Amino acid sequence: MTREKLMNVEEFQRVMGETGFDAVVATSQPNVFYTSGALIMTQLAIPKRLAMTVLPKGGDDALLVCNIEESLARADSWTEDVRSYVEYAQTPIALLAGVLKDKGLAAGRIGIDKMYLPAAHYEELAEALPRASLEACDELFDEVRSIKTEGEIERFAQAALATERAIVEAFREAKVGSTEAGVLRSITEKVGRAGASHTLFGVLRAGDQSFHAHPAARERELEPGDLVGVDFGAEFDGYGSDVARMAIVGEASDLQAEMYDKHRRVQRKAVECMRAGVRASEVYEACVQAYADFGIKLPGPHVGHGFGLSLHEAPMLQPQNSQELRSNMLIYIEPVIVDERVGALQLEDLILVKEDGAEILTTYADTEELFVIQ
Amino acid sequence: MTREKLMNVEEFQRVMGETGFDAVVATSQPNVFYTSGALIMTQLAIPKRLAMTVLPKGGDDALLVCNIEESLARADSWTEDVRSYVEYAQTPIALLAGVLKDKGLAAGRIGIDKMYLPAAHYEELAEALPRASLEACDELFDEVRSIKTEGEIERFAQAALATERAIVEAFREAKVGSTEAGVLRSITEKVGRAGASHTLFGVLRAGDQSFHAHPAARERELEPGDLVGVDFGAEFDGYGSDVARMAIVGEASDLQAEMYDKHRRVQRKAVECMRAGVRASEVYEACVQAYADFGIKLPGPHVGHGFGLSLHEAPMLQPQNSQELRSNMLIYIEPVIVDERVGALQLEDLILVKEDGAEILTTYADTEELFVIQ
Repeated sequence: MTREKLMNVEEFQRVMGETGFDAVVATSQPNVFYTSGALIMTQLAIPKRLAMTVLPKGGDDALLVCNIEESLARADSWTEDVRSYVEYAQTPIALLAGVLKDKGLAAGRIGIDKMYLPAAHYEELAEALPRASLEACDELFDEVRSIKTEGEIERFAQAALATERAIVEAFREAKVGSTEAGVLRSITEKVGRAGASHTLFGVLRAGDQSFHAHPAARERELEPGDLVGVDFGAEFDGYGSDVARMAIVGEASDLQAEMYDKHRRVQRKAVECMRAGVRASEVYEACVQAYADFGIKLPGPHVGHGFGLSLHEAPMLQPQNSQELRSNMLIYIEPVIVDERVGALQLEDLILVKEDGAEILTTYADTEELFVIQ
Repeated sequence: MTREKLMNVEEFQRVMGETGFDAVVATSQPNVFYTSGALIMTQLAIPKRLAMTVLPKGGDDALLVCNIEESLARADSWTEDVRSYVEYAQTPIALLAGVLKDKGLAAGRIGIDKMYLPAAHYEELAEALPRASLEACDELFDEVRSIKTEGEIERFAQAALATERAIVEAFREAKVGSTEAGVLRSITEKVGRAGASHTLFGVLRAGDQSFHAHPAARERELEPGDLVGVDFGAEFDGYGSDVARMAIVGEASDLQAEMYDKHRRVQRKAVECMRAGVRASEVYEACVQAYADFGIKLPGPHVGHGFGLSLHEAPMLQPQNSQELRSNMLIYIEPVIVDERVGALQLEDLILVKEDGAEILTTYADTEELFVIQ
């Protein structure tokens, strides 16, 4: 069934008009999904099996896939012009070059997402279209995709809430002796029951792995006193999540409770300063200052990130980014500190930026105190 | 804990010697894991957060990661020289260029996996090292990684068998009224209990989705007469799987049983012809011929693929590939046909190539007849 067209077509065409591109080519999985509605899992699993959209100024889009995925692409996508290549008989880039020529773009200014397309494919394209001007268009996608449509906000909010709920329910069921990997499996099962097609990533930090950002899962049993951090993302029909919550096994030490409380206060201060017009770097600086008030140095390179079809997308809340927040941006806010005594501290909530403030969308359970695993 | 070094170091250095490269740089997740032992999940989830290995001729390797992943990289990797960049303060490529200069390679012949590194990063590197000769080294990795070490064979065989078992056990528990997504969740849970960290992909074909190669999961209930195809991959501490099995809900029609039987006979004929020295294209042609004997045309572009840290890797069993099979290659054999009456037919088994034949490693349950879901 054709997916609902959630991309902001008018904005895309407007920004493309500003850039002067005659056409834009999307090659990354998120850009292709955004511009076509076709969710092709092998784009990630089998990188050489390229799928692409060709988006000329004014319309007349085409979707290019390998023939193995053609029936799915036709079923999923709102793009009527679906073309396919047979692997090993024709390269994906040969098909792309042919389509661009067909559309009279052989000598055009073509934008392409060069932060994704591998160099070897790019060089093949440059050779096949010697008169074309191939330019990076990653910023165009970053800009358009950063402002979410209503349908996107609804889907990403549901994904976030379902993920938060799964984490909290898994905490409720966990106990001393539950294994770290077992808690992650429990979350995986719960997001699955809530409609997730698959897990994007799942991290549980505890014990001696409290100091890694993204350790691998293991069968270690939870022990009293463990400060547990979970950072989990799942995908619901193409729309993902990225939520972090913390728990204590048994009773928190004074230091654990204190550090958690300080961390949470900083995160909430960051949310308070977010609204349309505030610069991304200002949110970062607000966290630096709030931590400094507690005598803590923030070591993280960012304190949050735009979220959409990519896990990290514009705007990145980092000190060099002077970009202003805008209404209908979705941002996961996650200042992280690693305390050498208690380990990493991380809460991650989904925020909707509005004209006059920011709304927290991950509101299933209160985070004022550490969740207690009995 | 540092991972066991399963890469074939001698073979890697030997092939590098043949190429004449002064150093090789790995940027893809599988190549970095292969050459360092560091399993960095954000390499896939956050593509801009590059991780890389620098592998000079004769040794003196370095592992380059963003500082967020540094503690994990140091714990996982056997590479002693771990360097890190701070995101947004320094680009990953600036760090790479500095390391290459430090190692006296600024004017060297550098191999780089250009089938993975995005064009924008590649151009930044070319600009930073104007005197270096940057060349594609994808084939070097393809060649070395295609011959598995004993430790790799053991891990990939275990992953395959655990996945096969999970699929078959989920079939055993399924019944009329089970949902398609529910069956996939059941498999996910079972591979998780067997030690999988996450699902690589999970596909279930039934009903009107029998004709897509990789449809998205849905809550449709299984009905009597459904021909069910499952293609599932999971990752066990970095080592993945890719197994396909089929089942019938209730009683198979004569046509379903007949088509399944023909399909399976073709797959077994392909296995019978595999041994060291046989060309990849010959296995493909054997399938074409075996299907033709049944009056069926094989539409698929390949009938199987090398498997390792990448889902599809050398050797691809496709008609243009004259590469000879070699001992200790691991290959998933999967001729697929889509019959317009019954849907897609696919069995996928892991095969170990030997001097005198090929051993099927996915032997948990017999596939001679369709598994019956009651």
